[in-house]
Parts: sequence; C-alpha cells; structure tokens
Amino acid sequence: MNIRGLIYTGIDGWGKLASLLEQYTVQGVFILVDENTANYCLPVLLEHCPRLKESHVIRIQAGEEFKTISTTSLIWQELSDYGALRNSMLLCLGGGVITDMGGFAAATFKRGIDFALIPTTLLGMVDAGIGGKTALNLNGLKNQVGLFAMPKGVFLFPEFLKTLPERQLASGFAEMVKHALISDRVHYNELIKCNLLKDKGAESLILRSASIKVGVVESDPHETGRRKTLNLGHTIGHALESYSMHHDSEPLLHGEALAAGLVCEAFISMRVLGLPESDLQSISNFITWHFPHYRLKPSACNDIIAYMLKDKKIDSPGKINFSLLQSIGKSVVDQYPGEKLIRESMHFYVNIEFGFFS
Amino acid sequence: MNIRGLIYTGIDGWGKLASLLEQYTVQGVFILVDENTANYCLPVLLEHCPRLKESHVIRIQAGEEFKTISTTSLIWQELSDYGALRNSMLLCLGGGVITDMGGFAAATFKRGIDFALIPTTLLGMVDAGIGGKTALNLNGLKNQVGLFAMPKGVFLFPEFLKTLPERQLASGFAEMVKHALISDRVHYNELIKCNLLKDKGAESLILRSASIKVGVVESDPHETGRRKTLNLGHTIGHALESYSMHHDSEPLLHGEALAAGLVCEAFISMRVLGLPESDLQSISNFITWHFPHYRLKPSACNDIIAYMLKDKKIDSPGKINFSLLQSIGKSVVDQYPGEKLIRESMHFYVNIEFGFFS
Repeated sequence: MNIRGLIYTGIDGWGKLASLLEQYTVQGVFILVDENTANYCLPVLLEHCPRLKESHVIRIQAGEEFKTISTTSLIWQELSDYGALRNSMLLCLGGGVITDMGGFAAATFKRGIDFALIPTTLLGMVDAGIGGKTALNLNGLKNQVGLFAMPKGVFLFPEFLKTLPERQLASGFAEMVKHALISDRVHYNELIKCNLLKDKGAESLILRSASIKVGVVESDPHETGRRKTLNLGHTIGHALESYSMHHDSEPLLHGEALAAGLVCEAFISMRVLGLPESDLQSISNFITWHFPHYRLKPSACNDIIAYMLKDKKIDSPGKINFSLLQSIGKSVVDQYPGEKLIRESMHFYVNIEFGFFS
Repeated sequence: MNIRGLIYTGIDGWGKLASLLEQYTVQGVFILVDENTANYCLPVLLEHCPRLKESHVIRIQAGEEFKTISTTSLIWQELSDYGALRNSMLLCLGGGVITDMGGFAAATFKRGIDFALIPTTLLGMVDAGIGGKTALNLNGLKNQVGLFAMPKGVFLFPEFLKTLPERQLASGFAEMVKHALISDRVHYNELIKCNLLKDKGAESLILRSASIKVGVVESDPHETGRRKTLNLGHTIGHALESYSMHHDSEPLLHGEALAAGLVCEAFISMRVLGLPESDLQSISNFITWHFPHYRLKPSACNDIIAYMLKDKKIDSPGKINFSLLQSIGKSVVDQYPGEKLIRESMHFYVNIEFGFFS
C-alpha cells in the first residue's frame, strides 16, 4: 500500500488538490465541515480552490459527541438529497471527527464513493488523517464501528493550525510524543526542546511525525503486527476518554486522555519490560509540563477497567492487550500486564500531581 | 476472487459449516436471526451444530422495513454488550435482509469481524447471499448504504425452503428467471417447464441459478462491467419496490417488483435492442402466470421515475442506466433509453392485465 504517495503538503499540495478535484464535476464534489471549520477553514479552501464555491457543503456540529451513527445518517441523507452519485467525491475538511466519520460515510455510501482528507487539527495531520482507518463511536465507546478505506489523497496544510485553540494543538502534540516514543529517541529529544506553538521549525517536526505514522502503517496496513505499536498509551487513554465523556461536563480531549495513558503505560513498561526509570521520569515530567493533570478519583478505576475490557483491540475475553516500551524509541506489542498492575499505574499517575517525580 | 470456493451445499455443507465454526470459541460465535428464522430455521441449525446452543442469538424483527441503520445499531450494540471481539464470527441465518444487513454490521463492527451466511429464502440462495454485497436501505431508498465484504462461507441448504411461504418462494423465483434471461436460454426453457414448489429437480435448478450468479460476480466483483448484467429488471424493479414500500399497506416483495420490472425492461429491450417480439411475449406470459399483477396507477409513474433518478447505479445526473436484453440469454449493459420509453414500458405492463398478449 503506497500511503506516502497519497499525502501532499505545502504549496505543491494546493496544486495537487486542485488537479485531483478536476476529475469530478463541481456538483459531484461535496465538502464536509463542522461549525468551526466552516468558519475558519472553508474560506481558506475556497480561496485556493475557487471552483468549489459551487459545490454543496454539508455542515455538522463540532465535537467528539457527534461522531455517531446519527450524524452519519444525516451525512448520507444529505448526500442522497443533493444528488451524490457513485462517482462523486466527499472532501472532508476538519479534525479527527470529520476525517474519521466522513471517511466512513463515504466508504459506505452506495457501496463506496471517493473521499479525500484535509485535516485541520494537529491530531488529524499527524494521526487520524493518515492510515485508512474510518470510525464512529457507539454509545460512547470509541471507534467501535468503522472500516479500513483509503482516501484518494490526504492534504497537510500546517497553515490551518493557526486557527486552532491552544488546547486542541496540545491534544495533537500528544500523538507526536507517542510517535517519537515508539520509534525515535532523537525526534523525542527535539520535541522536548521545541515550543510547538511558536517555533519556526514546527512544520518540519509535524511532517516528521506524520512520516513516522506513514512508515508504520505502510508496513502493516491492517494492524496485524507492527501497527499495534501505535497503540502505546491508547489502551488506558481510550478508556479514560470514554470515562470522561460519560462523567465530565467538559470531557478530556483525545490527546489529553492519551497523555495520561502514556504516563500510566510508561509505568507499566518499567515494571514489565524494564523501561529505565530515567525514561519514565523524562516522560512523566514532559507530559506533566504540557498537559493539565486529570483528577482521577480512585472510584473511577473499576469503570475505566470495564471500558478497557470493551476495547475493540481485545482478541481474547478478559485479556487487556497493551503495546509498551522497552526504552524511549523502542516498543513491544502484545503485552498483558494484568489488572493489578493497571491499577497501580493509575495510582502512579494520580500521585504525580503530588510531586512524586519533581 | 474465488467465490465458488466459499459456497457449500448438501450434506457436505453441514460438515463444512461445523469445521468453519470450530475456528471460533462458542462464545465467539453470534447468530443473527429474525422472528421467522428463529422459529423455523434456528432449530434445524442447532440440530446440525449442537455446539452453537451456547452461542448468543441476536433476534431482530422480520421484514424489509427493518433493513435500516436503526436495526444495524441494535445489532452492533448487542455484539458489543455480549462481548464480541475482533476475532468473533457473526453467522447470519435468514433471507436477504438478514444476510445483507448482517454482513454490513459484521464488516463495520470493530473495523470488520468475520461473518458467514446461511440464506434461508430462495432469493437469498440464488442472489442476495452470493457476491459480497452488503447493504441497508436509507429512508426507504433501497441499498443506498453498504459496502463490498466477503463472507467466510455461504451455505446453501434447500431444505430451509420447505419453511417458506409460497409468496416468498415466488419472489426468489423472479431472480432465477432473471439469471436465465441474461445468460442461458436452455436454463430459461427448463424454468418455464418446472414447478418449483413440487418438482424433485428443483434443487439442481437452484444450484444452476446460484452458479450463474457466481460466474458473473467472479468475473467482475466490483461491478465495473459484466456484473451490471445482473441489473436486468432492477432499474424499474427497485423503483417500484421503493414506491410500493411508501404507498402500499402490504408492499411488494423484492421479487414481485422485479417481475414487473423484467416485463417493462423486456419491452424497452424490444424497442432499443430489437429483442424479438416472441421473446417479449414469452417473458410476459411466463411472468403473468407466476406473479400477481401490480395495479400501477398512471399517477405513480412520476414518483417511480423520481426513485430511478436516485438509484445508486446512476453515474451521470439524470441519465437512468439500464441493463437490457438483445435476446433471451444475451444481455447488454449501459443502455439509456430515456424517460419517454420508460413511461411507455410501464404503460405496456399496465395493459398486459387486459390481455394484450393473451
């Protein structure tokens, strides 16, 4: 699978996008946006591709809580009502919700129409937009529904990041940290030093991170082996995210949950695989510095473990599968640390706040 | 794509089913049934595969009107609630609704779990169960949502047909007639003579019909060319079916709508491709003999054409695509007869009742 060949960026990217879209009539192109990208990103897109002003725009509400089958049904219905055909194209302009759900809607409309992705968040650029996964949440369970389907192109324009609130930017940064942790200590050290919001060099770090994801996915498109390394931090992170979605008035963003998951799973890695304590300390400090600390109640642990037991990556009942670290830059898949150690890791995370490592 | 190799039948079929299912734990197998197959077919399955008595059964309501995203959500939720994992198996026991929708639910649950089909209707055995298409209706529009996904096996047991009401059997028979029309005049002549409900030779005719479908699908799995021949009768048939679903208290079955569609499209074939009048007469008589005549009101024609314009096989706005017949046994794809001729064909169908050809 040639994923790298489908990813375009920079000034050249706008030209490639225009020539891709020329393969469709303007009425055959549908643009999917949410309230935010409609305001902040759609005008930029239309400036670069004025022909799209005649295309139909499908607007949905912004937020992870709308990544549902109900919203997908609205997208299908609007495609149908506005005459989308089997040779139409859905252009998804937005964050992970838009690219995951738009990809799913396109891949299942009339047994699959073309789609392309323009991720507008850092998370979308380095992670969600890359790799051919489409997904919906099911009753709050993350990404329980979905399929593998490749877009016709993924277009990375870091200029969209200027429109992003700082909290959203940090959320995507967590995936960049994860990419570095699983494969590249040098890149990790660069990230520690950078200030993503202000550095001029940020764009090259973003492309490096996207490139790590591309490399992993190309070597294992359907997640039978190496792609599982991308799961680092996500077994606990996804469960925390589901928990927070059900319990908090202002739920954790994906990257915020992942950041906490990375600390927990680094702790488990130390116990199970001998990750050096200095590495654990570096990871904990780095994450504590960049992300707000989630106040996890002890009573929440049972619920969070229950969510883990429903994780779609579980292949044997009751056995929670982890991808862990041997050292920064070196990951190991298919680890089953067991419930006791999972609880201890959450306890470790809770106590960081009280200066365990400071 | 080796579809033929995935289809099992006869006594050997039960053995093959058992050995397929042995690859999964009993808790890992989920059986999808509707109210009817729960009563009439599930006991037969459990008798042949007693191990499945411990598997979870998902029951849905019977009928085309439940082939929706709402029902699919219930299936996903029940899979999730009862602990289905990525290596689970959904065994779909029922007619076209169960096999189409069950296939879709499985192919999209956790980005795709295994599924296998046991069609229990004639329509399912010769058509819906074969070819890797999964589908849902969207707001009454037939099969607007779906994707291509191959089951692990398709098991044809004609013994299930004994449980079928005569009207359902006739509905499947319409697809058999279509298979004969598009590819095999000898088989068509056999069908004219047979009494499917009582003949001992019926089983071999059914397998012949399934085999025609397999041959066509294997040569063109994603419907870019020859597979379109299977569309004969369906452009008008699907639109009639959608119309009837919205307007009639007891809507047409798929095969009943198809039967009317075959007559209309044979008429169009005569005008466009010179189908001999004797062939049109044979088709009209045969269908009038086997299927109730649908009392189409002249006022319905506009609605029916509007449904055709939303058909998922349209690839150019406003151009309604047909697969037609040059003669019985010989089909031609990508025909655009235009609205006037479509109206005339419906007029022709309406008048058959009054003895045009008797």
